[in-house]
Amino acid sequence: LKPSGIVTLLTDFGLHDGYVAVMKGVIMTINPGARLVDITHLVEHGSVPQAADLLMEASPYFPEGTIHLAVVDPGVGGKRRPIALEAENRYFVGPDNGLFWPVLARHTAARLIHLTNERYFLHPVSPTFHGRDIFAPVAAYLSLGQSLAEMGEILFDPIPLKRPEPQFEKDRMVGEVVRVDHFGNLITNILEEDVKRLFTPERAFVKMGTLSPLRIHRTYSDVKEGDLIALFGSGGRLEVGVNLGRACDVAGKRSESPLGLRVEVLLLP
Amino acid sequence: LKPSGIVTLLTDFGLHDGYVAVMKGVIMTINPGARLVDITHLVEHGSVPQAADLLMEASPYFPEGTIHLAVVDPGVGGKRRPIALEAENRYFVGPDNGLFWPVLARHTAARLIHLTNERYFLHPVSPTFHGRDIFAPVAAYLSLGQSLAEMGEILFDPIPLKRPEPQFEKDRMVGEVVRVDHFGNLITNILEEDVKRLFTPERAFVKMGTLSPLRIHRTYSDVKEGDLIALFGSGGRLEVGVNLGRACDVAGKRSESPLGLRVEVLLLP
Amino acid sequence: LKPSGIVTLLTDFGLHDGYVAVMKGVIMTINPGARLVDITHLVEHGSVPQAADLLMEASPYFPEGTIHLAVVDPGVGGKRRPIALEAENRYFVGPDNGLFWPVLARHTAARLIHLTNERYFLHPVSPTFHGRDIFAPVAAYLSLGQSLAEMGEILFDPIPLKRPEPQFEKDRMVGEVVRVDHFGNLITNILEEDVKRLFTPERAFVKMGTLSPLRIHRTYSDVKEGDLIALFGSGGRLEVGVNLGRACDVAGKRSESPLGLRVEVLLLP
Repeated sequence: LKPSGIVTLLTDFGLHDGYVAVMKGVIMTINPGARLVDITHLVEHGSVPQAADLLMEASPYFPEGTIHLAVVDPGVGGKRRPIALEAENRYFVGPDNGLFWPVLARHTAARLIHLTNERYFLHPVSPTFHGRDIFAPVAAYLSLGQSLAEMGEILFDPIPLKRPEPQFEKDRMVGEVVRVDHFGNLITNILEEDVKRLFTPERAFVKMGTLSPLRIHRTYSDVKEGDLIALFGSGGRLEVGVNLGRACDVAGKRSESPLGLRVEVLLLP
Repeated sequence: LKPSGIVTLLTDFGLHDGYVAVMKGVIMTINPGARLVDITHLVEHGSVPQAADLLMEASPYFPEGTIHLAVVDPGVGGKRRPIALEAENRYFVGPDNGLFWPVLARHTAARLIHLTNERYFLHPVSPTFHGRDIFAPVAAYLSLGQSLAEMGEILFDPIPLKRPEPQFEKDRMVGEVVRVDHFGNLITNILEEDVKRLFTPERAFVKMGTLSPLRIHRTYSDVKEGDLIALFGSGGRLEVGVNLGRACDVAGKRSESPLGLRVEVLLLP
Repeated sequence: LKPSGIVTLLTDFGLHDGYVAVMKGVIMTINPGARLVDITHLVEHGSVPQAADLLMEASPYFPEGTIHLAVVDPGVGGKRRPIALEAENRYFVGPDNGLFWPVLARHTAARLIHLTNERYFLHPVSPTFHGRDIFAPVAAYLSLGQSLAEMGEILFDPIPLKRPEPQFEKDRMVGEVVRVDHFGNLITNILEEDVKRLFTPERAFVKMGTLSPLRIHRTYSDVKEGDLIALFGSGGRLEVGVNLGRACDVAGKRSESPLGLRVEVLLLP
């Protein structure tokens, strides 16, 4: 797999400190030709599931040979293993805490390596910042074409991602709200492809919390300004939004946080 | 017009999600040599006038041949047309909703194209994310030197930007606050060049809301710490600021939001 | 010193406006090959000490020949001098207000120049945005290999950074909280190297405000979830954190802002 020279960065480090810039400096010191792209650095602190979804959704839009560096790492300095893998013609580098589980689940032929070869680390390795001392340099060496196999041993038992999966109960799919985006859209763990396989979307409706049932539409402007709408978002998931408004505020009137809110897809009677 | 290889991005997509990164991935997949620069992704949700001003002010500082991709697009998936234009030796790509109106107004010889040639789109085109499926790929192809003319038909009736323009009433200019910047400066729609054409700035003063009249100074430190000051900002507009403080907080004591606050420029009696 | 072509940017300009993008456009117009990396643009408004620390901590991780452009500039347009310097095989460009004091203190052989040669400025020079009109173009010319010496006169009396330094009192070091990072960690002005020189860290403990004394640990997960911990952060400073939590919230219960909170390092009795 020929590296594209692109390294993406995804963290929960925020934008106020120098942590992300330090990782970029480390990468550019090793590979002055690396081309860096931020995915986001505003993942909720320690939220591995959120980061895993964002990465899985963004990765396919990058060129083959891209290195995806992801550091949401609440266990840094403890027993969790640093890993790297090749899947879908891209590389992924980060902690073994479920971050790459959706990618691994989608691509079972992935080559997964426990990063143990300290030749590719920055020394001394800080116990609190493996992003700088392990993951950034490994990503940089991968972007130079260094072989993944030389960086450690094959790993067979990656840590799975613990999170609720949507269930099919009798005549309905039951999932939940797993993310609120910048526009206030409530993004669920129910996939478009599953709804389309199991239902006729034109004849289905969506129940979320205590809101009135919603038909599934195509785009926001299909309903009046301020009205709630269910639709399949650009990431391939069922969402609830408001045309020119914020669904999270509407749902928020009834519950403290919309995360975890129950969502059902049913067939019209 | 030879492309510079630079593509700028301006959106209201925020920094929490993967939307911006996905657009960047699309661009780099089509043009691996593209050089990406963010203008901002924190435009107020759906605020086309704000985005239009930011773009008009930033664009002239970029090299000729730069592609400016701007996606503030509340009507996505509806009837609004996707467009691209060449003006001021730069390209602009985005929705036809007034976003490029200031550029068009300044440069009447602009070539304006309704993007209809689906060869330059990503397929299938999502009804909710034309930034990814139409505007990013078109920007990428333009940055490769692809001809604008081939991308669609000439368009003669772009949607104008609806917003209040400053008025000249008897002996005074009357405008309003249209933006609050990161420092809390209140930025008006009154242009420096108009004030200088109509008044002698040294003999003019500025009335904003119920604040005491202000003389027009050169820079913040011309007044004492904490004092209000009127001045022409670096973007060529009349502003009201506070030396080492936040004008929006001072004005905010008297009104809920400073946006839309009436601003007058008068000659000293 | 051969430039690396990398220019980093550090400001308090925020991410909502076009100010940072305008500086990037200016740099790329002068040096189309420049490679731009943001350190942060969310320095607290006018906080020179915070910016100085962030810059000093990030700079060594960038390749030699990097240009560090830093604009936290509350005195813009007044009497403060624009400067540039070469130190530690890197260049630094910005206002003479203490921003580069930690770098200068660490590297006494630095070459320091008062930027007076207007050939390297953008004209007309705005009185409120030297970032755009002086610092960005100077950084761009340095990144092209232009000689620092030609850009002005040698300057011997840079403005020092005024801020509290930790004190050694009898048997203890006394410092204070100087920064709160994105994770809520309370970062002090007490350096790891000083503690290690003066104490045996295993036998030392840390008192912060009215909190119970803390032992110095290695990493967050050395204590139970939710427990406070003292440790040396990746930037080489004594910090107080909470495993999987936010120390600033814990300390915040007892005082309004943790900034300036007294921190002592003592030997166990």
